[in-house]
Amino acid sequence: MKKLAVIGSTGSIGTQTLDVVSARPEHFQIEGLAAGSNLKLFLEQVKQFKPKIASVGSKALADEIKPFLPAGVQLCYGPEGLVEVAAGTDADTVITAVMGSAGLPATLAAIAEGKTIGLANKETLVTAGHIVTSLAKEKGVPLLPIDSEHSAVFQCLNGENRSDVAQITLTASGGSFRDLTREQLADVTVEDALKHPNWLMGAKITIDSATMVNKGLEVIEAHWLFDVPYEQIGVLLHPESIIHSYVEFQDSSIIAQLGNPDMRVPIQYALTYPDRWTSPSRRLSLAEVGSLHFQEMDFVRFPCLRLAFECGKIGGTATCVFNAANEVAVARFLSREIPFLKIESILEETVSRHVPVMNPDLDEIREADSWARDMAARL
Amino acid sequence: MKKLAVIGSTGSIGTQTLDVVSARPEHFQIEGLAAGSNLKLFLEQVKQFKPKIASVGSKALADEIKPFLPAGVQLCYGPEGLVEVAAGTDADTVITAVMGSAGLPATLAAIAEGKTIGLANKETLVTAGHIVTSLAKEKGVPLLPIDSEHSAVFQCLNGENRSDVAQITLTASGGSFRDLTREQLADVTVEDALKHPNWLMGAKITIDSATMVNKGLEVIEAHWLFDVPYEQIGVLLHPESIIHSYVEFQDSSIIAQLGNPDMRVPIQYALTYPDRWTSPSRRLSLAEVGSLHFQEMDFVRFPCLRLAFECGKIGGTATCVFNAANEVAVARFLSREIPFLKIESILEETVSRHVPVMNPDLDEIREADSWARDMAARL
Repeated sequence: MKKLAVIGSTGSIGTQTLDVVSARPEHFQIEGLAAGSNLKLFLEQVKQFKPKIASVGSKALADEIKPFLPAGVQLCYGPEGLVEVAAGTDADTVITAVMGSAGLPATLAAIAEGKTIGLANKETLVTAGHIVTSLAKEKGVPLLPIDSEHSAVFQCLNGENRSDVAQITLTASGGSFRDLTREQLADVTVEDALKHPNWLMGAKITIDSATMVNKGLEVIEAHWLFDVPYEQIGVLLHPESIIHSYVEFQDSSIIAQLGNPDMRVPIQYALTYPDRWTSPSRRLSLAEVGSLHFQEMDFVRFPCLRLAFECGKIGGTATCVFNAANEVAVARFLSREIPFLKIESILEETVSRHVPVMNPDLDEIREADSWARDMAARL
Repeated sequence: MKKLAVIGSTGSIGTQTLDVVSARPEHFQIEGLAAGSNLKLFLEQVKQFKPKIASVGSKALADEIKPFLPAGVQLCYGPEGLVEVAAGTDADTVITAVMGSAGLPATLAAIAEGKTIGLANKETLVTAGHIVTSLAKEKGVPLLPIDSEHSAVFQCLNGENRSDVAQITLTASGGSFRDLTREQLADVTVEDALKHPNWLMGAKITIDSATMVNKGLEVIEAHWLFDVPYEQIGVLLHPESIIHSYVEFQDSSIIAQLGNPDMRVPIQYALTYPDRWTSPSRRLSLAEVGSLHFQEMDFVRFPCLRLAFECGKIGGTATCVFNAANEVAVARFLSREIPFLKIESILEETVSRHVPVMNPDLDEIREADSWARDMAARL
């Protein structure tokens, strides 16, 4: 019986995590659930999984949901509630599926308590990779990636010596605007952007796929998760998203992980590692797919990806600033305040104005984060 | 320092094994070398690697080479010489690169002595898989595959539970006649057959690729090497031979091994396992390759592959008979005695006339082997 806490339970990863759990109720016990403001779904989840602790985004939301909660569920809220769910239960594993920078304090608190992390929150490693990975190392806590690309790399590294790795390659579908020129990108709308070819996902991450910021954040995550220098991380355009990522070893052998796009597979793997359980996911037939295509990444066409590598190599607060500026810029695009290409120029501009702090502590990260948000809101 | 013996040192795998060894002379010591009749090359090898024991195909050949051997090299010959090189030295690992049924007694003798086997001799497992694998298990001897497909599968299984395997898929380039119809096959010549698209290899194996017998033998080998039923072994047409093979696990995740076709990679892997060393092999760029293609295997177009599965499922001496009949049929085709499609009908006919012996001992295997050779020579 695995005891779980899920922070961000009503989002895409959170709900799919609970799908995996509910397919094998005899193997899992949900100790804690935390969500933001989707009270209707959250209430259903709390009733179904009966966590000991539940948390929502604010006191107002907590007051609203309180009368409907089953007896015996402890209710909390806000950032402290998130930390409580992540670190204050008997859970042995915490799935950090909350979006944005909010996931960091809760993840650190869970690591400090020695809990295994199923990591679906990109910002945790992007903003504080050095703090998170060194605390995890100190506490002997495994960081199990849930993102499909990182789960793929993690699977390809099974049974291998890390020192034999020559290159990690993350594949990228290219997002909804893969086939548009930069000129055509000038006029794309929010509606255009939200049509992602391969994966069903939220608005923010769909825009991040189109700008390739998402892949840039994944590159930074891969750097921290697998302890490889940026020079040994590549990105390859692969429209079919069938090869989820791969590892090249120094003998020139490549090990790749493939499958139909289905987040339940990496989620389940993080829950069952090192074992694998049967899955309702559709089996991949390469004969049916017929062909797979690959194309060199074009860093001129996707300048945000180039910028992500640059920020990663700078290190310190640079990656945090990249991420915070992007959150604001994407929000401004989604609210139709700025055109699509302005996302890129806001990122470039914010990063170029930032004076990075090396080896920052949490306060310095927070400071860089809010500085970047202010800047990105004004540009 | 790894101590090696190589039986079949002048063949394609043997010479490439010695290439790998000579690139890292400080890591290897050659204890024994055995070859057939290519005395010129064998003499060069003996002078370069200074084995303690050397063996050639017959007494006549031994007498011929004897005056030219460096001092201190013990010379032997014939099947006993092969056994002596495989089992009678201080080698900890034996590379069984000899072709045909001759490899079996030497391999068994080496296993009995507790030596790790780098297995490049297909017939060993095809004719006596049950004896070889149970002796290896009893002696705790690893059987490290050198064939690119089996090495790929072996690599994909790294760090995984064997019980989580759902399916093993061997890829097949389709051989030199991939795009011909069965009607067009009727008139193909020896010269046509020897143009194999992706791999440089000997005449016998090139014909076996065109008939898909080679893949059939690999299926039978995979059954024994990885202890999977034939129902869980698939074959996929993949003209580029870039994905060397793959394993699907029960969570629907597929792990594949990829690379440019270069036998030095699986050979080196068998020599360095579980580590990986740098290799002179050309690195694979999927962007440069551009696309990979896959096609369902057509068992009507390739009846020998269907027959291999059938023989595998029958078990006992059926696979030995399949292999022996094929050796004779291919020799008859290469000597221009029979047309290409007659290879298939000889196999079908020989197998159908055979009364398989279940769980055969070595005598029964030898008997079935010579029965099949006689039959295949007369059909």
